[in-house]
Amino acid sequence: MPSFLSTTDADFETRFSALLGMKREEAEDVDTAVASIIADVRARGDAAVLDLTAKFDRLQLTPETLAFSPAEIEAECAKVSPEDRAALELAADRIRAYHIRQMPQDAMWTDEAGASLGWRWTPVSAAGLYVPGGTASYPSSVLMNAIPAKVAGVARLVITCPTPNGIVNPLVLLAARIAGVDTIYRIGGAQAVAALAYGTQTIAPVDKITGPGNAYVAAAKRRVFGRVGIDMIAGPSEILVIADRDNDPDWIALDLLSQAEHDASAQSILITNDAAFGQAVAIAVEKRLVTLARRDIAGPSWRDNGAVIITRDLSEAAALSNRIAPEHLELCTADPDALSLEITHAGAIFLGAWTPEAIGDYVGGPNHVLPTARSARFSSGLSVMDFVKRTTLAKMTPAALAKIGPAAERLAISESLQAHGLSVRARLDRLNTSGENGGAA
Amino acid sequence: MPSFLSTTDADFETRFSALLGMKREEAEDVDTAVASIIADVRARGDAAVLDLTAKFDRLQLTPETLAFSPAEIEAECAKVSPEDRAALELAADRIRAYHIRQMPQDAMWTDEAGASLGWRWTPVSAAGLYVPGGTASYPSSVLMNAIPAKVAGVARLVITCPTPNGIVNPLVLLAARIAGVDTIYRIGGAQAVAALAYGTQTIAPVDKITGPGNAYVAAAKRRVFGRVGIDMIAGPSEILVIADRDNDPDWIALDLLSQAEHDASAQSILITNDAAFGQAVAIAVEKRLVTLARRDIAGPSWRDNGAVIITRDLSEAAALSNRIAPEHLELCTADPDALSLEITHAGAIFLGAWTPEAIGDYVGGPNHVLPTARSARFSSGLSVMDFVKRTTLAKMTPAALAKIGPAAERLAISESLQAHGLSVRARLDRLNTSGENGGAA
Repeated sequence: MPSFLSTTDADFETRFSALLGMKREEAEDVDTAVASIIADVRARGDAAVLDLTAKFDRLQLTPETLAFSPAEIEAECAKVSPEDRAALELAADRIRAYHIRQMPQDAMWTDEAGASLGWRWTPVSAAGLYVPGGTASYPSSVLMNAIPAKVAGVARLVITCPTPNGIVNPLVLLAARIAGVDTIYRIGGAQAVAALAYGTQTIAPVDKITGPGNAYVAAAKRRVFGRVGIDMIAGPSEILVIADRDNDPDWIALDLLSQAEHDASAQSILITNDAAFGQAVAIAVEKRLVTLARRDIAGPSWRDNGAVIITRDLSEAAALSNRIAPEHLELCTADPDALSLEITHAGAIFLGAWTPEAIGDYVGGPNHVLPTARSARFSSGLSVMDFVKRTTLAKMTPAALAKIGPAAERLAISESLQAHGLSVRARLDRLNTSGENGGAA
Repeated sequence: MPSFLSTTDADFETRFSALLGMKREEAEDVDTAVASIIADVRARGDAAVLDLTAKFDRLQLTPETLAFSPAEIEAECAKVSPEDRAALELAADRIRAYHIRQMPQDAMWTDEAGASLGWRWTPVSAAGLYVPGGTASYPSSVLMNAIPAKVAGVARLVITCPTPNGIVNPLVLLAARIAGVDTIYRIGGAQAVAALAYGTQTIAPVDKITGPGNAYVAAAKRRVFGRVGIDMIAGPSEILVIADRDNDPDWIALDLLSQAEHDASAQSILITNDAAFGQAVAIAVEKRLVTLARRDIAGPSWRDNGAVIITRDLSEAAALSNRIAPEHLELCTADPDALSLEITHAGAIFLGAWTPEAIGDYVGGPNHVLPTARSARFSSGLSVMDFVKRTTLAKMTPAALAKIGPAAERLAISESLQAHGLSVRARLDRLNTSGENGGAA
């Protein structure tokens, strides 16, 4: 049974706080193992990567076969049906069109002191995308990670994707090719992250690593953070649906189940202002669970982590949603646009009942890599911004330095940083003793 | 003696690589101690914070005196000279004016499929700024951290700043007041970071923690990352100056020393296309070091970590700079704007000899919190963007869903995510069986 809460219950605050604080994922303690894998890859390079791949993926590779050859990629891609290919291409086009709009603008201006100020954005030179193997090997995630990098202008984009026992997902290779990935290495785990961060004889190091992975991959990303940039460490997926009674309970049930089927530790929450509707959705969920292919995952997720919360009105629902800061938020209400203005923390909002969250997973356009575990309070989904960085620019004229330099000198002295002050003073003195004052006098 | 390298030397690549890989900071192993401090604060709240402050800062506080009172702040601020106050206000005005331009724009559009797409930016609700105590307690850093947060619209902004033996820097309190900080707690170390991340009876938790600190503070920030957002973990400061021979060697020497005086592990590098000029700067540095107040810090920094690199031309200098990805880069050349176009990785660029880096530390306008240790390859300086987050928006019409829904359904099936597919299919079926097709037929 999922939790049923109502804001009019006397113990609501206690139970809602417990829901907020719920720990759905046991952190496996893999850090020691990961530290030694990283050290091994740093010390022995390719040899370590090959040994670890033989051990964990039961796959014998050589430096020459670490990456898929163009012919192998071609052969795998040929296995994909025209319909699947067309769907991937539609998704890629829409994701690209959305992310192109995220490109930040350079700026440069001259202020009233005569100082020219601004910034310039440049792409990361090389990025590595981790793609899980096995059943969690999602071609849609390849598009969602690779396309923003390509839009940003990343010159070298590589993938690492383990192929346990040599088993490959053709759709992953096709998605990589559609997205413009340069090289695909058939390695995974902490050894793949270490190879991307530090490089080996065969694998050139990258500057940024993104993409989801298991506990080993997550621990390795934490460890190499600083040496390279990383994206977020994602937790189990979550959906929050705010729905009024003018919805089909079956639609809402399917939306809740579409998160629940990801992982037994996923979380699906319905908030509604109508108790009868809440009950109807819960019944619809149970009905769908009977036949759902992944019922052994979705069932435990819904019963252990799911919740139905009844509120007095939709504003109260929005306020609770802001405390949860959900990864995915559906607003299935009469005026979702108006309600969305009350939302202050959410990774992605899906407006109206005709926008099931699954649209956003594949073809909507926005990224499906989103902040989990309440981190939408302080972070954003993956975007072009993850693959660019800003260089600030400042240019003084002699006149500008004459105007603002004395304040810099004074602050430097107040912080006991004499050389800072002298570097300004030496220039100010030149202005005073020469005609080189740029009109500042 | 700093290193002297020339790109025409046979062993240049080896020596330059060694310079790049140089480890200037020994990572203190404080993680175990920090883990236990965080656990203590989580378990005992205020009591732990008070005990740890008594132990590490030799200061007896109570819950009531954890924060400075308005009267205490007023009394400390009154000690600041009118000249220092005016300099701080000029700096704050300029930093604010620069950062206001960084505010990102919301967007919403309708594409050819009829889908409405976009995003909205919202501020982090509460942020905590760590300010070191003692000699590294810089009022300029208070402005550089607090002003972007206020510009972003952060509703609650607090500072933690240890006051060992009760000693307070009035300029820090004044800078906080000028920047609009709400509360200043006189605590520091890992216990302050833990209190900000988890909250205590007296200190409400925040969503984002920024600001520099010692090894304990850095380790604590790493540990609470995920629970809250953090800014970068900053390493020792660095400057790279690219200068041609038409510069005053003394100016360049002072610029190099203005980083060297921060910390013995700071690094100052000159790249020039004129060997004689390189020698002249090295001589000027030694001359200035004789009388510099912080010569016992700047001297070891320059001799152990400093370098003078002679290149064939300025483009070669830019290429080497890109491999270093410096935190601060001065371009003291005849046409710094043109040369800046060759720079692909740098935290901040200071254009021309009239723009000493110290201007950027205080009054230029751009932020002085910048990526160190070659992380400008993948990250940016502190900005308004650190205090906002993006919510993506998507809204389908029935017609839009009819157009792109089938591709989503197909991809869901290819990923064995049946409920995802059904959530789309249930809606598509409604379109087929009713007139509710929004004009899609």
